[in-house]
Amino acid sequence: MLNRYFIHLSYDGTAYHGWQYQPNAISVQQVLTEKISTLLREKIDLVGAGRTDTGVHASCYFAHFDSLQKELHLDEEIIFKLNHMLPPDIAAHRLYAMPENAHARFAAVSRTYHYRVRNVKDPFAQNRYWETYWPLDIGKMNAAAGCLLQHEDFSSFARTGSDNKTNLCRLDEAHWKKEGDTFIFTITANRFLRNMVRAVVGTLVDVGRGKLQVEDMNAIIEEKKRSEASMSAPACGLYLADIRYPEHYGLGLSKENMNETRV
Amino acid sequence: MLNRYFIHLSYDGTAYHGWQYQPNAISVQQVLTEKISTLLREKIDLVGAGRTDTGVHASCYFAHFDSLQKELHLDEEIIFKLNHMLPPDIAAHRLYAMPENAHARFAAVSRTYHYRVRNVKDPFAQNRYWETYWPLDIGKMNAAAGCLLQHEDFSSFARTGSDNKTNLCRLDEAHWKKEGDTFIFTITANRFLRNMVRAVVGTLVDVGRGKLQVEDMNAIIEEKKRSEASMSAPACGLYLADIRYPEHYGLGLSKENMNETRV
Repeated sequence: MLNRYFIHLSYDGTAYHGWQYQPNAISVQQVLTEKISTLLREKIDLVGAGRTDTGVHASCYFAHFDSLQKELHLDEEIIFKLNHMLPPDIAAHRLYAMPENAHARFAAVSRTYHYRVRNVKDPFAQNRYWETYWPLDIGKMNAAAGCLLQHEDFSSFARTGSDNKTNLCRLDEAHWKKEGDTFIFTITANRFLRNMVRAVVGTLVDVGRGKLQVEDMNAIIEEKKRSEASMSAPACGLYLADIRYPEHYGLGLSKENMNETRV
Repeated sequence: MLNRYFIHLSYDGTAYHGWQYQPNAISVQQVLTEKISTLLREKIDLVGAGRTDTGVHASCYFAHFDSLQKELHLDEEIIFKLNHMLPPDIAAHRLYAMPENAHARFAAVSRTYHYRVRNVKDPFAQNRYWETYWPLDIGKMNAAAGCLLQHEDFSSFARTGSDNKTNLCRLDEAHWKKEGDTFIFTITANRFLRNMVRAVVGTLVDVGRGKLQVEDMNAIIEEKKRSEASMSAPACGLYLADIRYPEHYGLGLSKENMNETRV
């Protein structure tokens, strides 16, 4: 009888070729799988909430695994020991005991990404924001972000050659705010296409700097061609920031836990 | 005729053997002096507001230098170019033209340090806080910090063997606050003894975890012996966070500028 656990994580993705296991490159999934297996003295398989690309961060991430051992989540030492085995750029926050069919990826109701852009160099945030040199008009960027919410087909922001069955996504929010010198974009949807957030941010920043007009946004989306949108924003500014699961999963802490990792 | 400039800086000290030039190790002063000299095509000398130890950070720092060139502060490109020449862990924020006798070190009226302590691992703040495993009582730490304000002789927190003429300091503030999972200690004084903030923090954390009592604090200070106080807290949690100059220096922005570097 296997016991299913969810583990709440966060990581700085700078040093990793993304979440997903790669045959010839280091991934967050590989490091975590090895350390958890060593700690529990059994081979575990880790199923993540989704892929993140090379250099992309997660300030909130969930993965699940099955163990022969019961009530691991009641052992207060486990997270402490695991954090000592893990490198400093990956943190484990909490274990949750879950029903056997709970699934970190398929059960996710929505995901939220943040993207950080700054005009001012920050020595304390190397590799964790996109440093741009254009003055940005946040009002225009928010007007353009609002256009996204009128649409469902995001083919214009999908990596060409992707074999998605559909490019339809249901967006719940898409807006910019400014904290100090940092522009922070927040986008929540039931699903995201590969590279979509970075393509959206690249396009919105082009609006903010005046290279594109707010009115161009609808046309770009309706054209349904990746070539209409702008270059993708760099990976280093992107954070998977929240994952929502059905209420009965009891993981409602994720929003609160995000505060643990100020970035 | 030389023209004196102040430069407002910030740096992540992790990779450096402190601010001050060292014959056989890399320092922030050396890197900045070389890059500014290259940029201006003249050999400049940089005088910093004070030393920071190996691994200590500065979220606000001022230094001065003299140049043969006039009105460098009006050239908007200079800071931009300098930031591109500097490594990502050192940032230049602004140049100020100053009277020829303005002095970054001797004219400083007070300095403010922050010290960051966390119980929760943060993958986005490697080398930028002290990770402790004891629950800390912030009320007790603040009561003990309050004792500091009753005293002027801080010999108990001075590195033994230091040849300070006096161990007297005038403290303006010393208190803890909690932001998310981070305990932040703020201390402002007209001067600091070498290693003083880290020795103070080590002692206050011992109070917060219950190893020392609040009532022990006065006795520790009055004993005037370093051996009475606790171990020094590690360098990585310490930030020089503000430097105040006389009002006519016109550098009143330093407080505001601190917000540029969220850490």
